[in-house]
Amino acid sequence: MNVKLTIEYEGTHYHGWQIQPNGKTIQEVLELAIERIIGVRVRVNGSGRTDAGVHALGQVANFSCPRQLDFWKLQKGLNAVLPEDIVVRELESVSESFDARRSGRSRVYQYRIWNDPWPSALFRRFCWHVREPLEISAIQDAIRVLEGEHDFASFQASGCDAAHATREVYRNSLSREGEFLIYTIEANAFLRHMVRNIVGTLVEVGRGERTASQFAELLQARDRTKAGPTAPAQGLFLMEVKY
Amino acid sequence: MNVKLTIEYEGTHYHGWQIQPNGKTIQEVLELAIERIIGVRVRVNGSGRTDAGVHALGQVANFSCPRQLDFWKLQKGLNAVLPEDIVVRELESVSESFDARRSGRSRVYQYRIWNDPWPSALFRRFCWHVREPLEISAIQDAIRVLEGEHDFASFQASGCDAAHATREVYRNSLSREGEFLIYTIEANAFLRHMVRNIVGTLVEVGRGERTASQFAELLQARDRTKAGPTAPAQGLFLMEVKY
Repeated sequence: MNVKLTIEYEGTHYHGWQIQPNGKTIQEVLELAIERIIGVRVRVNGSGRTDAGVHALGQVANFSCPRQLDFWKLQKGLNAVLPEDIVVRELESVSESFDARRSGRSRVYQYRIWNDPWPSALFRRFCWHVREPLEISAIQDAIRVLEGEHDFASFQASGCDAAHATREVYRNSLSREGEFLIYTIEANAFLRHMVRNIVGTLVEVGRGERTASQFAELLQARDRTKAGPTAPAQGLFLMEVKY
Repeated sequence: MNVKLTIEYEGTHYHGWQIQPNGKTIQEVLELAIERIIGVRVRVNGSGRTDAGVHALGQVANFSCPRQLDFWKLQKGLNAVLPEDIVVRELESVSESFDARRSGRSRVYQYRIWNDPWPSALFRRFCWHVREPLEISAIQDAIRVLEGEHDFASFQASGCDAAHATREVYRNSLSREGEFLIYTIEANAFLRHMVRNIVGTLVEVGRGERTASQFAELLQARDRTKAGPTAPAQGLFLMEVKY
């Protein structure tokens, strides 16, 4: 049977989603937890990688399980053995054809900026602290050009192994909630560091260092060296994967 | 000159506000930080104690400073030397008569319950996880009796050194935001563990173990042994002190 997991995690203490030789990852901890509960090592297939330090409220993964399972017991068992910064929120049986990565129609990410002269004691693990006042309306003007199908090479990390950089952005928006600026973006798929590179550049727009039309030119340029810095990982959340 | 501080802190790693022989406290760390910046050890007078593990978005304190200060520089210096879980949000000069504790007209506390079968990976330091579904309307009925002036001995911790247990509750309410139940209470002052004892008892009301009228009788009884358990510290936030 094919099992679908929806997972919440705090990325602070992990080297990202995907198993790697140096450092603890979410995928690895999850596979070990499943092995402890069902007695077999399985390969957990995530909807996509998240970088070191990135959080998730709705990461999705699937694995093929050799036998029938009581899902309530499995979820209870997993949440009992998982560390407290990883929680399985949902667990369900899906058709054999379901593939968390390939079947995903879109991903929703949120990026949180704490925009205040002083940092936040309570939210420090979950935001990027930007001291200088940012012009929200300038950012809101700039982000309109991102919607639709584009070549996002300007916002692609150098190590990204994607075959091409064309992605379709379904929506993106910026709102203020108290000291937080919340940037939300939904696309069919994302390049490595794409959201963080967009946000790093948008902060330059908000500071008045780039105009909305320069931001549009940058997207056209397909040149990573022209974009702004990569925003830090801890402000980024994978919110939802849609199927 | 008399200096007023507004302070945000994550209480997770502290033994509460007040200086004590065993364990690091917010007050102590703040006094040491001030000494590092202004060169003199001062006594910081808080609006009230918070227990070990309790958080604050708007704790207020004052101290008497022997000389004139550039406030922007002082705040910058303090936030540079303070650990990242304590932040001075505001700093201002106040009249000599201002006393953070005695001048306080009211305190606003918030308590957050994560009400879901599964715990929260991201918010685990900032809530009490209650698995069983709670009947919100039953709690909302019960809390009405708390408003006004009452003897709150039923919700007073045994070690509380208050002269009497009469306090005036100006308002209290319960709302749902996603998986969170948020209880807010404003009163002229609070007894030790008062909010946490009220919340622990309200959760019993929400589970159907007590009725609203039994909750009202409990308030009348002025007997701590009849109330519910003390809710854990990490769900509690001192939001604001009004002067």
